[in-house]
Amino acid sequence: MTAIPGEFAPPARLLLGPGPSEVHPRVLRAMSAPLVGHLDPAFIAMMEDVKALLRFVFATGNTLTFPVSGTGSAGMEACIVNLVEPGDAVVVGVNGVFGTRMADVIERAGGVAVRVEAPWGRIVRPEQVEAALRNCRQPKLVALVHAETSTGAWQPLADAARLAHEHGALFLADCVTSLGGAPVEIDGWGIDAAYSGTQKCLSCPPGLAPVTFGPRALEVLHKRKTRVQSWYLDLTLLSQYWGEERVYHHTAPISMNYALREALRLVAEEGLEARFARHRKNHEALAAGLGALGLALAAEEGHRLPMLNAVTVPEGVDEAQVRTRLLAEHGIEIGGGLGPMKGRVWRIGLMGESSRRAHVLAVLAALEDALRAEGRRVSPGAALAAAQSVYAA
Amino acid sequence: MTAIPGEFAPPARLLLGPGPSEVHPRVLRAMSAPLVGHLDPAFIAMMEDVKALLRFVFATGNTLTFPVSGTGSAGMEACIVNLVEPGDAVVVGVNGVFGTRMADVIERAGGVAVRVEAPWGRIVRPEQVEAALRNCRQPKLVALVHAETSTGAWQPLADAARLAHEHGALFLADCVTSLGGAPVEIDGWGIDAAYSGTQKCLSCPPGLAPVTFGPRALEVLHKRKTRVQSWYLDLTLLSQYWGEERVYHHTAPISMNYALREALRLVAEEGLEARFARHRKNHEALAAGLGALGLALAAEEGHRLPMLNAVTVPEGVDEAQVRTRLLAEHGIEIGGGLGPMKGRVWRIGLMGESSRRAHVLAVLAALEDALRAEGRRVSPGAALAAAQSVYAA
Repeated sequence: MTAIPGEFAPPARLLLGPGPSEVHPRVLRAMSAPLVGHLDPAFIAMMEDVKALLRFVFATGNTLTFPVSGTGSAGMEACIVNLVEPGDAVVVGVNGVFGTRMADVIERAGGVAVRVEAPWGRIVRPEQVEAALRNCRQPKLVALVHAETSTGAWQPLADAARLAHEHGALFLADCVTSLGGAPVEIDGWGIDAAYSGTQKCLSCPPGLAPVTFGPRALEVLHKRKTRVQSWYLDLTLLSQYWGEERVYHHTAPISMNYALREALRLVAEEGLEARFARHRKNHEALAAGLGALGLALAAEEGHRLPMLNAVTVPEGVDEAQVRTRLLAEHGIEIGGGLGPMKGRVWRIGLMGESSRRAHVLAVLAALEDALRAEGRRVSPGAALAAAQSVYAA
Repeated sequence: MTAIPGEFAPPARLLLGPGPSEVHPRVLRAMSAPLVGHLDPAFIAMMEDVKALLRFVFATGNTLTFPVSGTGSAGMEACIVNLVEPGDAVVVGVNGVFGTRMADVIERAGGVAVRVEAPWGRIVRPEQVEAALRNCRQPKLVALVHAETSTGAWQPLADAARLAHEHGALFLADCVTSLGGAPVEIDGWGIDAAYSGTQKCLSCPPGLAPVTFGPRALEVLHKRKTRVQSWYLDLTLLSQYWGEERVYHHTAPISMNYALREALRLVAEEGLEARFARHRKNHEALAAGLGALGLALAAEEGHRLPMLNAVTVPEGVDEAQVRTRLLAEHGIEIGGGLGPMKGRVWRIGLMGESSRRAHVLAVLAALEDALRAEGRRVSPGAALAAAQSVYAA
């Protein structure tokens, strides 16, 4: 090779976008620990810890709870290709990028996606799910996105799960952005299968997709008439590797599992309730500050996620220019909009380690600066004062 | 959570199994660097370096050369599901675990796997491939495993690639274990698509699967009549993320890409020829030492891989007990056999950073010790002397 690139030195960033989130130094340190083999007794013992810690954050007793060796979207695909067979009808909520993606994956698996649509930013109503189930012969599955990262909408799940069961269907939840930042009650809400990602409220680098499968989902899996179309994501094989048999399947990403274990330990040390309260408080402070800047949240009132805030871009403001300014001048990453929301929203993530008072104040100060540069009249310090008053309350 | 597990402290291991291999401290350090966003300009520039470095080790000019966000088996599945449509005939060499796995993945993609079999440890002959191609109406693809990790067989590829093209088929190579340890000439040998893994001769932690697609493969991809069954591995989507458009697809494993970049920099600094020569020399020294211990290699003479040595377990020796002793008393991991070779071979990997003179001598000394404990008569120091004589030559 003629010109070998030099060592990569990542620029200093404060990650307040839709993920990855900030990673705790303990997790970064775990990433750099020397490797052991993926069938080493020490690694197998570590896998058991990861499974137990994941059961804790998922609030489940499901034996089959483990990280799929891919990112959140691989977790989505793992859940769908294992539960859906060609011709199966799946009622799927579509109110953002990730519901749209689920419908796509369902169809690629040969399923029939029965789309239940809601405007982006709004939630899917239980009565919509019920109507779709009534119109459906033998629905196999109902699938909803708990935390729609593209819009900031917070979808309730318990009613939809109950309706799914009343119609003989399983219930699948996308918990990529919610897990570790808001309550996810797999057993309590009757969720049969769920997937998440590591780089959101778990504050671990991206690369693994925690999944959990309950007894009804396993029964459906074991009664399949066709082979799972993906070898890599075939749970009948993966469960032998992650289960007691320890049958070689693929080489697990060793270092990523080290990191996930450490990230989950941090979650457990903080405690779920305290962690959820922290996410709520920082969201409220951010929302108050945004309000003082004259900015509105795009998601439906009463159903706004604490960890992902989609902010409507005011008329006349250059959406991309503001993000560029935040990145270049403040070292702060926030996200842009996707799909129909492209150019129309900013997405501010306060996930896991990113959900900190200092970060809320930093992003508000940076936004105040950027909006002023865009010619907006903003009252100096009003946003910070509004946020501080939430913390003082 | 009632009992939070303590910090994980991996035991000290010398990794001389079938992978993961030893990881250089520079790569471990890269893993622990703070994260940037996956659409950050700094990450996008880093992706370009990773792609250029991968083109260098693959010896290709293929634009579409990048790491799939999964382990080697995800790379296998990515290549197959993108190139194979339902009903397509694929001639696949089956002489070990990974050829068997390819046939499985081909069938799950709806393809017709035309198996060309050879005994485990032997290579697939070009005349076998030719006969299968002749018997096949419109073969779509020929697929072979370059380095069969389960047996140590080193499969020549150039003749088979030529035959594939003569019959209007594409040629796909599994280079998981060979890449970075032995010549892989994607362009020179006419390979249309190939995949690898990071945790073998690239000496990076597992978690990414480098792939490369040439112009003929892209043409087939673009002429598909059906959608790729996997959303996660759909190259028409992935190429937009890894290409100039930078369209969001999934969140790339940031830290793993840092690590791969650093591991590839080490490969480039050493130089491919020097690296291949190092792998050959250490293999020869190991083989000489094994011979002095009365141990034979299981793969066909003349087609033995330099980086993976399958060693036939002598009659009366407890295969698992020897591995346990190596791990417990010497901290050395070697692998056991898979499939029909389970209990019949050990697999000693000398891959990337694991391929070092000190490691060859360490594993020979440990094996001498373990064989003596098994009641074998071994001449003290003979194995080490035999290995040293190779280095002295």
